[in-house]
Amino acid sequence: MAGVKIYDTAVSPQWIDYNGHLRDGYYSVIFSSAVDALMDRVGLDEAYRKHTGCTLYTLEMHLHFLHEVKQSDALSVQVRILAADRKRIHAALEMYAEGKAEAVASCEFMLLHVSQNPEPRAVAFPPEIAAAIEQLRQLSAALPAAGPGSRTIELRSRT
Amino acid sequence: MAGVKIYDTAVSPQWIDYNGHLRDGYYSVIFSSAVDALMDRVGLDEAYRKHTGCTLYTLEMHLHFLHEVKQSDALSVQVRILAADRKRIHAALEMYAEGKAEAVASCEFMLLHVSQNPEPRAVAFPPEIAAAIEQLRQLSAALPAAGPGSRTIELRSRT
Repeated sequence: MAGVKIYDTAVSPQWIDYNGHLRDGYYSVIFSSAVDALMDRVGLDEAYRKHTGCTLYTLEMHLHFLHEVKQSDALSVQVRILAADRKRIHAALEMYAEGKAEAVASCEFMLLHVSQNPEPRAVAFPPEIAAAIEQLRQLSAALPAAGPGSRTIELRSRT
Repeated sequence: MAGVKIYDTAVSPQWIDYNGHLRDGYYSVIFSSAVDALMDRVGLDEAYRKHTGCTLYTLEMHLHFLHEVKQSDALSVQVRILAADRKRIHAALEMYAEGKAEAVASCEFMLLHVSQNPEPRAVAFPPEIAAAIEQLRQLSAALPAAGPGSRTIELRSRT
């Protein structure tokens, strides 16, 4: 296992496509919910968002699809905090299906802390949130990756 | 405008998150449906899939979130075929909201042609499909990008 377990979910029947597998777009929806769980863990939870008007915006997401996922699979997501600064979190998430050793997908996110009112603008994390992010980073940054990381997508000829 | 228009959609109320905007994961769901439209356009449609047992698998997806999308936005997606080989398509998709000049998101996909039975394996496109892909590539490859392309996600310090 590659990171700190943060989220688990069943596969909704509506997420299955005409190929009989989890549709690519819904891997992202699951990873998005896992980021919500990450937010809860570091204190960027509903109460914080309501009280401060601050939240995370996703700037970028890079997803590798490694194995098919079926309706019957029980999924879990693990997280590694690769880096963070005053306003941003660079996180790597990996998805597993119960009973399979290899990750079924890996995903990197760049997340930005934003104050939404009156106009959205990037703001620094409060100290206690920054400390919680740093604690999780120290716990997870050095753990091994279970799938490819972000890179430039390109087609190298194999024909 | 940056590519060949391939898909349009309204924003489903279920896709709006606690920030009041289109949830990041649903940008991917919309891009995924746009890839279905791309498949229809080059002949990898439902009849083809049923007849041949072949389809496209998504290997990789890299998404940049450029602007917030609201419930009331009417969205369209444009495609550029950046490259293709015997079995793969490297496509860039850009999402627009009606009435706004700038793209709200850009996304690159690496797609692989797969024969699903008896076991999934990569296979070459039939000649007529390859020709349709090449025609769309010639039409779109040189069109300008409307958002960032795929790159390695990394946090350069701005603090």
